[in-house]
Amino acid sequence: MIQEFRYADGDVGLLGELHRPAGPANGRAILVVHEADGIGGNVRRRCAMLAELGYVAAAADLHGGGRTLADDAIGPAMARFRADPPSLRRRVAAGLDALIAATGFTSDRIAAIGYCFGGYAVLELARAGSTVRAVASFHGLLTTAAPAQRGGVAARVLACTGARDPLVPPDDVTAFQAEMAAADADWQLIVYGRALHSFTNEAVNGLGDTRMAYDRSADIQSWAALRGFLDDSFARS
Amino acid sequence: MIQEFRYADGDVGLLGELHRPAGPANGRAILVVHEADGIGGNVRRRCAMLAELGYVAAAADLHGGGRTLADDAIGPAMARFRADPPSLRRRVAAGLDALIAATGFTSDRIAAIGYCFGGYAVLELARAGSTVRAVASFHGLLTTAAPAQRGGVAARVLACTGARDPLVPPDDVTAFQAEMAAADADWQLIVYGRALHSFTNEAVNGLGDTRMAYDRSADIQSWAALRGFLDDSFARS
Repeated sequence: MIQEFRYADGDVGLLGELHRPAGPANGRAILVVHEADGIGGNVRRRCAMLAELGYVAAAADLHGGGRTLADDAIGPAMARFRADPPSLRRRVAAGLDALIAATGFTSDRIAAIGYCFGGYAVLELARAGSTVRAVASFHGLLTTAAPAQRGGVAARVLACTGARDPLVPPDDVTAFQAEMAAADADWQLIVYGRALHSFTNEAVNGLGDTRMAYDRSADIQSWAALRGFLDDSFARS
Repeated sequence: MIQEFRYADGDVGLLGELHRPAGPANGRAILVVHEADGIGGNVRRRCAMLAELGYVAAAADLHGGGRTLADDAIGPAMARFRADPPSLRRRVAAGLDALIAATGFTSDRIAAIGYCFGGYAVLELARAGSTVRAVASFHGLLTTAAPAQRGGVAARVLACTGARDPLVPPDDVTAFQAEMAAADADWQLIVYGRALHSFTNEAVNGLGDTRMAYDRSADIQSWAALRGFLDDSFARS
């Protein structure tokens, strides 16, 4: 069952989607944060897959009104968020607060996952010290203008990245590991050696963008890793 | 059903264990390479777990006669192998050849996994260009005196390592990624942020060695990753 997921960040009205489990609910919820353009097919598919597993899955909205940005608007919007981590952290946290309100679950029963820019967004949530149980990033940007502070990351962190992703070069992967280690976070990293950007998203193969490609093997294995990571994380709460 | 697994590397007689599946066989086999000392509880447990999944699992022997080395003999034995990669590659390949002979399987139906020094050993097998379908290393040393050459790695590679493993420091993890990328290998890396050396082995908690610790979460998740990696790898052959 898919419902409107209306909430606000200050005076910006946000419109996502709430996917309720059709079968037995497991009493947990996942905030799913979209790629740079907005809520699309990949996010909807992940929400459906999570609802099938018993989770309440909420597709968050970063841009307002559930809008999908036109190509020429994506760069500026991303640049604004990248330059101002607190603004992105507030925007994601607004979705989390709305999910808590919609479900009545405490934050230790909630995780946040994201794809591409959404992966970066959920890492920012973790860096901000959110008490959400876990966050997972798929081909998200791994560096930030506001690195995590020692002891400042409460959520468990999983990052899945492609070694050939031009948007996440090896130096960024190394820097992320050093950042998480210095923060004393509870983190995991998976690197898929032949994967490019957006390896979980079949639709990118039609875009003609050589930085991106669907990788079936990395998609299947990273989804399995997410399921195991969520099971392991929620078993602790 | 556990049988003796006798074979030789030149004039060195080797004695491992062959674990046959009790239930339905899946037509695939796994060579399991032991930690620095020799075949022990962790390797036997993994062989049993693999046999339960339908694999023929063979515990290889690196030291001859199935010996377990005394503490003061471990360092010199490892140093000899580390300084002479061809000798280690021959020793591991002898086990693989014996497993092929014992099962009648072609090498694309076989994988090799290893723990600690055995993890390093199976990576050496991959670096040597073995046509085994896949190799997986758990808390193994990731660097070598004889790095892989471009196009020289035929097997799929999975390495699971602990970010706090003093035997595998971050620089080695970075170097491994660069090596595999330069070799154009089909590789994956998983880093468990809080894991130390030997994170899969419950027995190390009794050793009083602060470099090592069992990590239940990393153990469970790396085993699940192995299962998915093997399924994915064998589905291609």
